[in-house]
Amino acid sequence: MSFFITFEGIEGCGKSTQARVLVERLNGEGRQALLTHEPGGSELTVEIRRLLADPDGELDRQAELFLFLADRAQHVATIIRPALEAGTIVVSDRYSDSTMAYQGYGRGHDLRWLAEINQKACQATMPDLTLWLDCSVETGLDRAIKQRGGPSDRFEREPLEFHRSVRGGFVELHRQSSERMVRIDAEAPPEEVGNEIYRHVAGRLP
Amino acid sequence: MSFFITFEGIEGCGKSTQARVLVERLNGEGRQALLTHEPGGSELTVEIRRLLADPDGELDRQAELFLFLADRAQHVATIIRPALEAGTIVVSDRYSDSTMAYQGYGRGHDLRWLAEINQKACQATMPDLTLWLDCSVETGLDRAIKQRGGPSDRFEREPLEFHRSVRGGFVELHRQSSERMVRIDAEAPPEEVGNEIYRHVAGRLP
Repeated sequence: MSFFITFEGIEGCGKSTQARVLVERLNGEGRQALLTHEPGGSELTVEIRRLLADPDGELDRQAELFLFLADRAQHVATIIRPALEAGTIVVSDRYSDSTMAYQGYGRGHDLRWLAEINQKACQATMPDLTLWLDCSVETGLDRAIKQRGGPSDRFEREPLEFHRSVRGGFVELHRQSSERMVRIDAEAPPEEVGNEIYRHVAGRLP
Repeated sequence: MSFFITFEGIEGCGKSTQARVLVERLNGEGRQALLTHEPGGSELTVEIRRLLADPDGELDRQAELFLFLADRAQHVATIIRPALEAGTIVVSDRYSDSTMAYQGYGRGHDLRWLAEINQKACQATMPDLTLWLDCSVETGLDRAIKQRGGPSDRFEREPLEFHRSVRGGFVELHRQSSERMVRIDAEAPPEEVGNEIYRHVAGRLP
């Protein structure tokens, strides 16, 4: 029964809300589903999340990448893999595609090298289904800023072009993995988005 | 005048003391020398050092590696490279050879992959001279434990075989890079060790 679902997309696409809604719906049906997130899904890595989110910290591009990978490796080893082995449906708000989109397409790390090192961090635990919540950069940032009452983390403060490159990264990742990765129109009203997500999940769950 | 010196060796070999002694001697001669260390040389990475040192935290092997690399990248970008560019002699207590010895020979990460990823973290900033303070594992652990009044960090708690593998790693690294890496007999009395180190440094400084 174990099944690994990831939510991906730019800031403000609605992933976190929709991931929570999905897990509640699955649990309401009597299935065992676990909601987790990156960065900072494991206890140890809450501190890493803080380091990564600090908008005032001057963080080297390579250091940022390695921190995300440390977080991923720890998250897989202590949360995701044990839950999957116990037969749980695991739903993660962000996972490996975010590394490719943000650090690869956004920050310009070499994509081939990034894919290789990303796999080392995932340690063979790959999603069975990825829900890519796609919206325009303008819609996403607008929502993210409204939600928090102002730009807050280091990514939200990046210029518009950075977010365009990240979105372009998701478009490309979807083209390469259209079997695993489903595009969801995240400009639609939240309830519609939730229903479309549920249809895809229900159709694939073992 | 910029010159990059690293100190390497197993726990309790006397690196930290000797690195400090060397920097004091160089500064006493009117040279500009900076003492730094890994992990945790940069402000941001003090927290990473805490994560790495916590003996009770269950830390995945891959996560540990990525944390050390994040620390290295940040250390190079914010401390080592700027100091070298300003013409300072930089002395670091541990650097890239520790990654090879501890994570490669100690933890069993693939050595070729490790060398590659290590280079990405160093970002082309490589030591001009490495002082490898070599002592037996028994001497080293005995000293380290006496200094702290008991085994304290995650590495000191590893079994004897782990430390033997790490020391074997330094032996191998020295064999491969005997030009850059000088072996210092760290079983000798501290003053003798200090004088031998100074002779090597004085002979190489530009």
